Amino acid sequence: MSQPLVTVWNEFRHEKTNETIRKIYPKGIHTAIADGLGEHGIETLTATLDEPEHGLTDEVLDKTDVLIWWGHAAHGAVEDAIADKVKARVLQGMGLIVLHSGHYSKPFTRLMGTSCSLKWREAGEKERLWVIEHGHPIVEGLGEYFEIEQAEMYGEPFDIPEPDTLVFISWFPGGEVFRSGCCYYRGRGKIFYFRPGHETYPIYYDKNVRHVIANASRWAALGDAPVPVFGNAKPLEPLS
Amino acid sequence: MSQPLVTVWNEFRHEKTNETIRKIYPKGIHTAIADGLGEHGIETLTATLDEPEHGLTDEVLDKTDVLIWWGHAAHGAVEDAIADKVKARVLQGMGLIVLHSGHYSKPFTRLMGTSCSLKWREAGEKERLWVIEHGHPIVEGLGEYFEIEQAEMYGEPFDIPEPDTLVFISWFPGGEVFRSGCCYYRGRGKIFYFRPGHETYPIYYDKNVRHVIANASRWAALGDAPVPVFGNAKPLEPLS
Amino acid sequence: MSQPLVTVWNEFRHEKTNETIRKIYPKGIHTAIADGLGEHGIETLTATLDEPEHGLTDEVLDKTDVLIWWGHAAHGAVEDAIADKVKARVLQGMGLIVLHSGHYSKPFTRLMGTSCSLKWREAGEKERLWVIEHGHPIVEGLGEYFEIEQAEMYGEPFDIPEPDTLVFISWFPGGEVFRSGCCYYRGRGKIFYFRPGHETYPIYYDKNVRHVIANASRWAALGDAPVPVFGNAKPLEPLS
Amino acid sequence: MSQPLVTVWNEFRHEKTNETIRKIYPKGIHTAIADGLGEHGIETLTATLDEPEHGLTDEVLDKTDVLIWWGHAAHGAVEDAIADKVKARVLQGMGLIVLHSGHYSKPFTRLMGTSCSLKWREAGEKERLWVIEHGHPIVEGLGEYFEIEQAEMYGEPFDIPEPDTLVFISWFPGGEVFRSGCCYYRGRGKIFYFRPGHETYPIYYDKNVRHVIANASRWAALGDAPVPVFGNAKPLEPLS
Repeated sequence: MSQPLVTVWNEFRHEKTNETIRKIYPKGIHTAIADGLGEHGIETLTATLDEPEHGLTDEVLDKTDVLIWWGHAAHGAVEDAIADKVKARVLQGMGLIVLHSGHYSKPFTRLMGTSCSLKWREAGEKERLWVIEHGHPIVEGLGEYFEIEQAEMYGEPFDIPEPDTLVFISWFPGGEVFRSGCCYYRGRGKIFYFRPGHETYPIYYDKNVRHVIANASRWAALGDAPVPVFGNAKPLEPLS
Repeated sequence: MSQPLVTVWNEFRHEKTNETIRKIYPKGIHTAIADGLGEHGIETLTATLDEPEHGLTDEVLDKTDVLIWWGHAAHGAVEDAIADKVKARVLQGMGLIVLHSGHYSKPFTRLMGTSCSLKWREAGEKERLWVIEHGHPIVEGLGEYFEIEQAEMYGEPFDIPEPDTLVFISWFPGGEVFRSGCCYYRGRGKIFYFRPGHETYPIYYDKNVRHVIANASRWAALGDAPVPVFGNAKPLEPLS
Repeated sequence: MSQPLVTVWNEFRHEKTNETIRKIYPKGIHTAIADGLGEHGIETLTATLDEPEHGLTDEVLDKTDVLIWWGHAAHGAVEDAIADKVKARVLQGMGLIVLHSGHYSKPFTRLMGTSCSLKWREAGEKERLWVIEHGHPIVEGLGEYFEIEQAEMYGEPFDIPEPDTLVFISWFPGGEVFRSGCCYYRGRGKIFYFRPGHETYPIYYDKNVRHVIANASRWAALGDAPVPVFGNAKPLEPLS
Repeated sequence: MSQPLVTVWNEFRHEKTNETIRKIYPKGIHTAIADGLGEHGIETLTATLDEPEHGLTDEVLDKTDVLIWWGHAAHGAVEDAIADKVKARVLQGMGLIVLHSGHYSKPFTRLMGTSCSLKWREAGEKERLWVIEHGHPIVEGLGEYFEIEQAEMYGEPFDIPEPDTLVFISWFPGGEVFRSGCCYYRGRGKIFYFRPGHETYPIYYDKNVRHVIANASRWAALGDAPVPVFGNAKPLEPLS
């Protein structure tokens, strides 16, 4: 397919209040992610929490093929109505890529139906992501694994539905494993949860991470999909 | 395992207001379902919408291994807090069996994360349920298919997550198919969606339907399951 | 991605010996399938049973992104060594599309690991294929279902592994259902089983059938996939 | 259900020729596994490679609810006819538990349809098995993980079909992860691949390992399952 239009959503608060984070992401995490997609020829819009409607107006969403979600400390500040609109859009066909701490975001937890709880530890540990499904479009162009030198650990149990396709499993030196690349079909939409990322590590400048997010954006974009018809239905065959 | 304790929840309104329905289920649909479980040696409690807390007090839920949910016309009357409590209990390990029009109930749609929409038609059509996964405990004791002489049709598209195990697919004479037996793991809990049933057909007296509900009750009951530990975690291995 | 090169394999015997079949497929079923792919801009090679190595030389397979398999009456005439070579190629990344009676072919049964048995009836019945996973690339451009006016019935039970993604379920007027579009990841390869097709019905001229086969060819083609490394491995982290 | 009858199959060669191995398993690995099942009240038979028909006569298999397979160095010595018979029995409903190096056995590779290749290293490393699906009967009675102090490492990529249910993921200190508890439905049968075990470590005396094998034996045993009917079928509904 041709390239999707991707809207990168970011909470965009801690970059303004925390000097360490601002040094790493001076223009916000969303800008770093958008820049990475740009390297792969993908056009982007951005939207942030403190804009009206969190930047997710109907006009923006009408143009959006895939929405990327980064949130961390202010999940509760996302209005229910906006979270529900995002969820509805996904079921209608918009792709959704949820990054790292977005596991606890309203759109993701409502689409998963589970708590999305997990283990975590901030200790700057190495993460190694092993490819599990080699033929999946999201892993094209990678080696059999890739590493992130400093990451926040996320460990199992990860309270999610069993992924429709499990693409990555992560290893951490402290003894944990994690399903770190999870694909879901929901309604007409496709959802990809991708673990890497953190506000205090420069992970969204990483070449492999950017590569996966670009692959996932193309995978999650809807083509010319069938339109399901719900409701009261006449028989297609005569009833005797 | 020993037999689970099953709580049968019913909206229990149309049986009181509609003469046709009362004739079929004079003591309510919940009583017919509970009687069916009794034939299989399974003890039951019942709970209904118009009781305080919809009958789903903590005391009742603490005793409940598996909750069966029947609702149809009054999904909106179920309090959000009760629906959320049921969802939380399922993630903690309570089994849930959702019957027929319960596809639109609050607990089910919140656990699925999708719209759960479908096609339907009330024309007293025959339904034939084909067994798809022959080794699954829910189909023990059945033939390769069974039939219901008069049913409301439900047809695809059925907007649910792909089942973790698909146990039945239904055929209808008007030209439709339907994934009519769907198993899900969610959190520590197990969920079974089972299509048959309707308020104007005597389906919960059917021998095969009762058999499946009994099998599903045993399948959905939690054993001595591991307790997941979430949150900030110390490393299990020393970090270098 | 750019278009894949697809090799269409056909038993190509009954077209030579049966007048009815020859009238429908005068140049062989493989040519009709290849013509259909050509309409979608996809280049093809063809290969048939009675060529040396059944036409599946290393030279041909080296060029092949996706192999389409049609066989019916002469599955036993396929040499084990060729079947094993096809299987190995799929695990290495070649796409495989298995059509209709190819369910009993050596490459498919060896890759599935099950009997691949099913129910069948030749009575020129209508088949209706319902889309089950609306966001999947294989169903792009379709309506919510499509029909084939005259088909051989295939019915459940279909003894296959539960598909990694179930794309279509078929309805037949005689009372049967069938999982008629089944996607599998195997090794680095992708496999699509697609039910429609028969030697005595002009199904491979059907617009929708050709459309699905073209979509499936693009889906099944491997991109720049990671190369798994098996065998004795040095530790990536120092062992204490 | 009542307890299954389990037949434990062992290659039983290295225990006779290698002093280190004999010291750990003086009566053979099969006896240690059978003893473990006995602790859980499960009756067993045993069968070994060098018996006539490898001990897997029709008489034995007729009695067997679940077959446990241990093999390592002599997979090639298993006769094709016996491997095919085991595969056929599984599809007909016999449970199969494949342990550790049995990943390369003929019955398992034929049922999986993939190479079943993996990474490995013999360095006496710790293995930690994390529970992934907490509500599954195979993990009843465990904690959220358990450890084996000294194990041969197996690492991803593991060339298997995506499990129908993934029950355990293992962590190893050298940087690897592994899908170490994998459930499959195949035909009427159920298959569990379980990674732990090795001929030079006393793993089959481990309390948790024995516990899982007992749970898996009960899970894999067939109940009163529907009998699929294949072949030419009369219509269940009149064709117009």
